[in-house]
Amino acid sequence: MPARYLNFRCSLPWLLLLLQTLCLIYSFFGFPEPGDVYPHLYPGFQDVNHMVIFGFGFFLMVLRRCGFSSTGFNFLLIVLGVQCSLVMEDFLRFLGLQYYEVDLKSLAKAVVSMTAVVISTGAVLGKANPVQLIVMTLMELIFFYISRWINTTFLQVTEDLPLMHVHLFGAYFGLAVTSRFPEPPPGLDKSRSTPKSDLFSMLGTVFVWVFWPSFNSLLTDSSMKAVLNTYLALAVSAVAAFMLSALTSKDGKFRMTHIHSAVLAGGVTLSYTAHSIRHPWIAMILGLLGSVITILGSHCLQRCFNPALKLQDTSGVHFTFGLPAVLGAVASVVLHVVETGIAQQWSDLSSLGYFVFVDIGAFCQTISTALITGLITVTILCQGTLVFKWIVILSVSYSQKQLTEKTFQQCLPNKGVKTWLLLLLQHPGEP
Amino acid sequence: MPARYLNFRCSLPWLLLLLQTLCLIYSFFGFPEPGDVYPHLYPGFQDVNHMVIFGFGFFLMVLRRCGFSSTGFNFLLIVLGVQCSLVMEDFLRFLGLQYYEVDLKSLAKAVVSMTAVVISTGAVLGKANPVQLIVMTLMELIFFYISRWINTTFLQVTEDLPLMHVHLFGAYFGLAVTSRFPEPPPGLDKSRSTPKSDLFSMLGTVFVWVFWPSFNSLLTDSSMKAVLNTYLALAVSAVAAFMLSALTSKDGKFRMTHIHSAVLAGGVTLSYTAHSIRHPWIAMILGLLGSVITILGSHCLQRCFNPALKLQDTSGVHFTFGLPAVLGAVASVVLHVVETGIAQQWSDLSSLGYFVFVDIGAFCQTISTALITGLITVTILCQGTLVFKWIVILSVSYSQKQLTEKTFQQCLPNKGVKTWLLLLLQHPGEP
Amino acid sequence: MPARYLNFRCSLPWLLLLLQTLCLIYSFFGFPEPGDVYPHLYPGFQDVNHMVIFGFGFFLMVLRRCGFSSTGFNFLLIVLGVQCSLVMEDFLRFLGLQYYEVDLKSLAKAVVSMTAVVISTGAVLGKANPVQLIVMTLMELIFFYISRWINTTFLQVTEDLPLMHVHLFGAYFGLAVTSRFPEPPPGLDKSRSTPKSDLFSMLGTVFVWVFWPSFNSLLTDSSMKAVLNTYLALAVSAVAAFMLSALTSKDGKFRMTHIHSAVLAGGVTLSYTAHSIRHPWIAMILGLLGSVITILGSHCLQRCFNPALKLQDTSGVHFTFGLPAVLGAVASVVLHVVETGIAQQWSDLSSLGYFVFVDIGAFCQTISTALITGLITVTILCQGTLVFKWIVILSVSYSQKQLTEKTFQQCLPNKGVKTWLLLLLQHPGEP
Repeated sequence: MPARYLNFRCSLPWLLLLLQTLCLIYSFFGFPEPGDVYPHLYPGFQDVNHMVIFGFGFFLMVLRRCGFSSTGFNFLLIVLGVQCSLVMEDFLRFLGLQYYEVDLKSLAKAVVSMTAVVISTGAVLGKANPVQLIVMTLMELIFFYISRWINTTFLQVTEDLPLMHVHLFGAYFGLAVTSRFPEPPPGLDKSRSTPKSDLFSMLGTVFVWVFWPSFNSLLTDSSMKAVLNTYLALAVSAVAAFMLSALTSKDGKFRMTHIHSAVLAGGVTLSYTAHSIRHPWIAMILGLLGSVITILGSHCLQRCFNPALKLQDTSGVHFTFGLPAVLGAVASVVLHVVETGIAQQWSDLSSLGYFVFVDIGAFCQTISTALITGLITVTILCQGTLVFKWIVILSVSYSQKQLTEKTFQQCLPNKGVKTWLLLLLQHPGEP
Repeated sequence: MPARYLNFRCSLPWLLLLLQTLCLIYSFFGFPEPGDVYPHLYPGFQDVNHMVIFGFGFFLMVLRRCGFSSTGFNFLLIVLGVQCSLVMEDFLRFLGLQYYEVDLKSLAKAVVSMTAVVISTGAVLGKANPVQLIVMTLMELIFFYISRWINTTFLQVTEDLPLMHVHLFGAYFGLAVTSRFPEPPPGLDKSRSTPKSDLFSMLGTVFVWVFWPSFNSLLTDSSMKAVLNTYLALAVSAVAAFMLSALTSKDGKFRMTHIHSAVLAGGVTLSYTAHSIRHPWIAMILGLLGSVITILGSHCLQRCFNPALKLQDTSGVHFTFGLPAVLGAVASVVLHVVETGIAQQWSDLSSLGYFVFVDIGAFCQTISTALITGLITVTILCQGTLVFKWIVILSVSYSQKQLTEKTFQQCLPNKGVKTWLLLLLQHPGEP
Repeated sequence: MPARYLNFRCSLPWLLLLLQTLCLIYSFFGFPEPGDVYPHLYPGFQDVNHMVIFGFGFFLMVLRRCGFSSTGFNFLLIVLGVQCSLVMEDFLRFLGLQYYEVDLKSLAKAVVSMTAVVISTGAVLGKANPVQLIVMTLMELIFFYISRWINTTFLQVTEDLPLMHVHLFGAYFGLAVTSRFPEPPPGLDKSRSTPKSDLFSMLGTVFVWVFWPSFNSLLTDSSMKAVLNTYLALAVSAVAAFMLSALTSKDGKFRMTHIHSAVLAGGVTLSYTAHSIRHPWIAMILGLLGSVITILGSHCLQRCFNPALKLQDTSGVHFTFGLPAVLGAVASVVLHVVETGIAQQWSDLSSLGYFVFVDIGAFCQTISTALITGLITVTILCQGTLVFKWIVILSVSYSQKQLTEKTFQQCLPNKGVKTWLLLLLQHPGEP
């Protein structure tokens, strides 16, 4: 399919040039002198940096043909996304008339935000082309910032907590995008896993597992408590993953996919509460529940939910990140209510009700924003590709109509638009 | 051998469930609120965590068929062991009426303790099944705690130092276990190394090498001194390993196995003294001696000692960890005596003698406890497997007697028990 | 070619023994008690340690047959070089009557100095034998110390800055050595890259990329500013590398070699200025320029410069490290002048001129010292090998003259010396 590749090969460098130029111009006007602060953050920042670049790269990308392209392209997305995230955060704060300093903390936030993008990428793996992935990255970062801004401003969630909604946002945004994405042509089936890719995937999983305590503790104040709770939750969910995998598989073997997804469930579940849980057993129970819900979810979703909605969740981000994040959200509301209730001796039930309302509201807002903006994004991606393709096709030649029609049939689910475009296409091609 | 695998496939998840439930229940009653302390420990803790999970995983496990099973199972052992170690340490301190707080330091101790288990695992590699490995992990952690408790209470060794006996305890415990372990059936020869596994092994070795200074300095007060001494000793022993390898091999080539074991000798030798050595040259000399003793030991042990005692030390833990740890123990006694002697101007020789007695006593106690408890463990493992197998066999069918007898012949060195059990087995099978 | 290998197999262990003994003897007399200081340096030190041992190992060594030998030998060079660097620095300071303490900072400096050696090694990859590499390591460390000493003493550059000349020194020293090195025999072509080595090379590149902020910030005071500037420059140069690679290749594909070299350009360019740049956009522009100059350089040098000078720069260290370092040097002079000028309101132009003179002088001195000492080193290496070979040949037998002549023809570019030596060789061989 040379035309298809030709498209993005021509457009990709120019898109990169455009974005990089915008970042440079903005940084010239916008960024102040960086402060030499937060040296204690540096080891944790490096851990998260490793985790996003190497860990998620291996963890999610192994289904593709494992080679230069996947490692390299994941890296490109991250270095571009971090810059865009810095610029956008600065610009949107500028609109809100807040002061913003570029320092290690804002860089750490940018890297953490990229996790949402990496998770979403896992859902559309093997279906989106590089240009679409870059556009999706930009739009997701903008929408994620807006969702965080709503949470901080209207629902009065404390400053750094909304950033921990990355898993929730990333998973549901990715699901929304993949739900409307055109199927890849059957010949290009890159979604088969091989024994070698399984091994790399296991390595990536353990890599992410090891760095997760740093991820959960990076932006909190009581970071060692967060580390301890996260480590215990991760340990329990790892044991539970092996246990449940052996129990639910027919021949008693451990199954790669179960462990791959459930090992991390404890860490995802504790994203919101790692710094505030007072008793290690709560963290451990949450880790266990996270693992259970992931493995049950992987069975239910793949058999009932995904076929019904015609979802193709390539890397299983829904049950790997989405469900444990929802569980974590519920748990954080319950823990918050119980703690406040005990402190007030259950005297002021109406204020408790308000707390519950606000907390649940924040999570529902994140999920619904993710779903809606995901649908918007996928529409723009497809239409954008369409318009772009149309321009390319016109400029390349008039004689390739058959190929064009074939490409359109593969790409467009919407018959009306297709017919309209084909008519439009035939119009300039008239002799 | 389906019956053999059937055994642990049925029992493994339930064993995991049991242990995890016990940990959860204990954590509910036992663990206090975690403190948000020791943030300066975190980078070192992460290093040791990496080293145990990735480094030792590659370093010791490569002889197995390199794939999902080895990486994954090593990981399972560690996450389970760390939890059990936390629980046990808390429980045994509770018996001793001491206060114990779950914080980053206790987690670090739990991870360091797991090193003993990982080393012992290296000795029984390819012979023990997963259930046996898990039971061995638990028993070794208990016995190691008891050995440390004896050292701290009766021999008045300072608090964190006995933890550094991990290498000594792990190596001799593993040797004792492997000495009485039944041979693996000849068809299941997993102990061959391949060029690819050699490469991974080299990578694992360098990985462990890089993190060793963190390991030796994690729990000491003068940690930068420990880092510096360990780094120099490791560097000297690495150079010596290459040098001796080229000298002792016939064709002048570097030999993988020599380097694999001798590169780390400097770090193991300095386990007890890294924080207290005053002159870098002492650390460097110890690194050199460690390397020499390891390579000489690998020649002597594999030719004379192991065949005589019918030992099968799969990964060579005796000369990789055991001998340098003994050297380090001797060196620490000598250095302690010389230092105290110089400080006292050799006036009070009787107190010096007492020092020597206590120091040597601590090391001898560790080695003898390791050997004795190792023998106890292997007896329980074999008998336990036997009883377990017997139950399974009875419950599965009466018609598989021939297979059973064969399995028993492979498993039991003790003819009396075998005959007795076969009789017992035939008893319910009577028509 | 058995004789050739025989040579270094006989000599390598004894050379290692000699060097290690010298280090041990010196450490006995020279090294004071290590201080327990600079604990805040430790995470950064570990990062740089990883980067040099693993990152550069993969990054530069992949062209060789990827296996035990390359990983292992790189490791041996580093552990030996770090010790020699510590000893030499101490000895040369001793000559200068300065006080020197062995602590974490001096260890960090030794590891950073080894970067120069690793880069130079990349240039002579596949041509030099192990003994030559070890001798080259020692000489390069001595010459690099002398170059730094000249910079600090006569050109009054601040203390830790000259260490950042590693890239400049390493690249040009390596170029000078490789320019006069005899060609490898055509049969031993180890310089082909395979898809697998490309993948490892990409991994090594990303690994080095991730650790580069630690490298640039390790020895500066305002380390977080250095981290932030370096991260941004690296991100821009990574995006630019992908962009330029797609633009300059014919089929629009990303090309491995471009990305491999240009991704790191931002970090190299900022070596001298990362801690002092006040505005992030300057760092970003420098990262972009570094990437552009590297990719343009790789086209120009490989087509025009290298064939003209008959250079064989195996790993492309000239455009990967040399050119961006030159750009960084120019940028640091310009930034220094502009800053001082603005501060003085351009009133005192003569002192500005003096600044420019001293700054440019420091960089020119480094480059010229690197080139001259590189030529000296390669002469000693070849002559030394010759003399050594001659001794070995004499001592082994008189009957292998034909083989000897053949070996000489491959080794010696200089006909006069060859004839002289062959005469010398025939003299004792006379019947």
